[in-house]
Amino acid sequence: MASITCAGSIALDTTRTPFKTVENVLGGSASYFALAASFFAETHIVSIVGEDFPKEYWQLLEKKANTQSIQHAKGKTFHFDSTFSFDLYHRHANKTELNVLADFQPRLSDDAKNSEFVFLASLQPDKQMKILETVKEKKLTFMDTIEFFIENSLDEVLKVMKKVDGVVLNDAEVRMLTEEANLVKAGRKIHSLGPKIVIIKKGEHGSLLFYDSKVIPFPAFPLEVIVDPTGAGDAFAGGFLGSLAKQNAIKPTMQQLKTAMAYANVMGSLTVEDFSGYRLINANEKEIEKRFNDYCELLRI
Amino acid sequence: MASITCAGSIALDTTRTPFKTVENVLGGSASYFALAASFFAETHIVSIVGEDFPKEYWQLLEKKANTQSIQHAKGKTFHFDSTFSFDLYHRHANKTELNVLADFQPRLSDDAKNSEFVFLASLQPDKQMKILETVKEKKLTFMDTIEFFIENSLDEVLKVMKKVDGVVLNDAEVRMLTEEANLVKAGRKIHSLGPKIVIIKKGEHGSLLFYDSKVIPFPAFPLEVIVDPTGAGDAFAGGFLGSLAKQNAIKPTMQQLKTAMAYANVMGSLTVEDFSGYRLINANEKEIEKRFNDYCELLRI
Repeated sequence: MASITCAGSIALDTTRTPFKTVENVLGGSASYFALAASFFAETHIVSIVGEDFPKEYWQLLEKKANTQSIQHAKGKTFHFDSTFSFDLYHRHANKTELNVLADFQPRLSDDAKNSEFVFLASLQPDKQMKILETVKEKKLTFMDTIEFFIENSLDEVLKVMKKVDGVVLNDAEVRMLTEEANLVKAGRKIHSLGPKIVIIKKGEHGSLLFYDSKVIPFPAFPLEVIVDPTGAGDAFAGGFLGSLAKQNAIKPTMQQLKTAMAYANVMGSLTVEDFSGYRLINANEKEIEKRFNDYCELLRI
Repeated sequence: MASITCAGSIALDTTRTPFKTVENVLGGSASYFALAASFFAETHIVSIVGEDFPKEYWQLLEKKANTQSIQHAKGKTFHFDSTFSFDLYHRHANKTELNVLADFQPRLSDDAKNSEFVFLASLQPDKQMKILETVKEKKLTFMDTIEFFIENSLDEVLKVMKKVDGVVLNDAEVRMLTEEANLVKAGRKIHSLGPKIVIIKKGEHGSLLFYDSKVIPFPAFPLEVIVDPTGAGDAFAGGFLGSLAKQNAIKPTMQQLKTAMAYANVMGSLTVEDFSGYRLINANEKEIEKRFNDYCELLRI
């Protein structure tokens, strides 16, 4: 059975919504990715936490994912404090304290080095590159990044992009990278930077898959109640790569990619139904399968 | 074979895009609706033009639709002048000259009164109501409106809404009507105002169908080249109601509605590929069928 190595942040989040504020909850790109991906395949997390990281959260991660490549360092865990607008469409960052993440030097367990599937969540691109080179048995590799690195370390971001099979980026990141407003044109431009599989996330507006000179649109699963959008994009990536790993799709067909995109939408939609990763932590395989079937049925004409 | 009666504006549009400006081209909600719907079923246009309305445009409309209920009045045709932003996402209205549309008193031919399907494009709500009452044989009725009427004639808009089977509105109109940001909640609220079929158009982000306590999301057909978004929403409605008429779906099933939504997306996507209604005028049934099949295939997982 194929496994996944995912590198990214583990955070303590303070999230302020118009309805409720939660403080120091489990967050970070690697946490969300792994909570989603682990439903499908063994997932190794490459990350770092500080001395303040609660035992309770550690146990949650350990129950779901392989935590051997998570380092414990002196100092505080990465902390992110943000406020959502009244309609939950816009987020304002109040405070970003990198703490132990600032000096993070990734170290991978032997098992993590042997994964077939790799996801590089947003991290400094030089660290992404180092991790990519460390996973010897990699067969299918994806990366994410954020506007901050596109703005400040574009060359390094492009170097990593040349080496991966695919990207999972949001619309703002893609427009910034390509200087192109039309997302269909922008997505095709990303192909020319290296990745043969391009995924653009548009939040509540769904997503686009670019592969084999085709562009496939996916709507978001319609939800009446959205509690906290944090982590939906990372859980989306986790559902996507998790599904590919479960299908052992090291050279994915269009059909395998579409199935993975449907699971991506399912995991993203679950995530926003509660704060932090609680909805993913409490989900079971049966309801994931049900939502996957519902999603496919909605789209069938 | 079922026919459609559509009431709305016929305009001479001046449309300014970053790439090109076109002046006094054929526009208006009824024009776009009819150019799309007429591929599927006979379409009667209820509208008015002035003395300046070019013979060439009259011949275009006459070739596609039934023009017996279009009045010729003294004065100038409705004129709309607008400018699109660099990315074609925002439109600024420069000038709206109602001209002959201001005193428009709809008069329907006997054939137009006997249509089974009715579409009330955006018009003053009292005129929409009058037309609705005039079509004696109506079986399935839909309406659209605009923010201006929701703001200034809400009671009248709601009266019409109580009488129709369905609405085709855009996201901004639905949010304004319901004072609800979440579109799934907002769409459900519209049910409580009367319409049992609710369609929310989100432009490039696709559309939502609410029926039988279900919410079905449809992505927009992905396009690399967008020339002029004008009229896409009206052509979308034309494809939708046209397809229902062709299916003779006076009590549509979910399957018939989904098929109609796919044709709606096809006709909307064609419209934006050229200025004015030229892409619809030049389209043929074979390419519409091809794009319909492509769209269904894109969505099949």
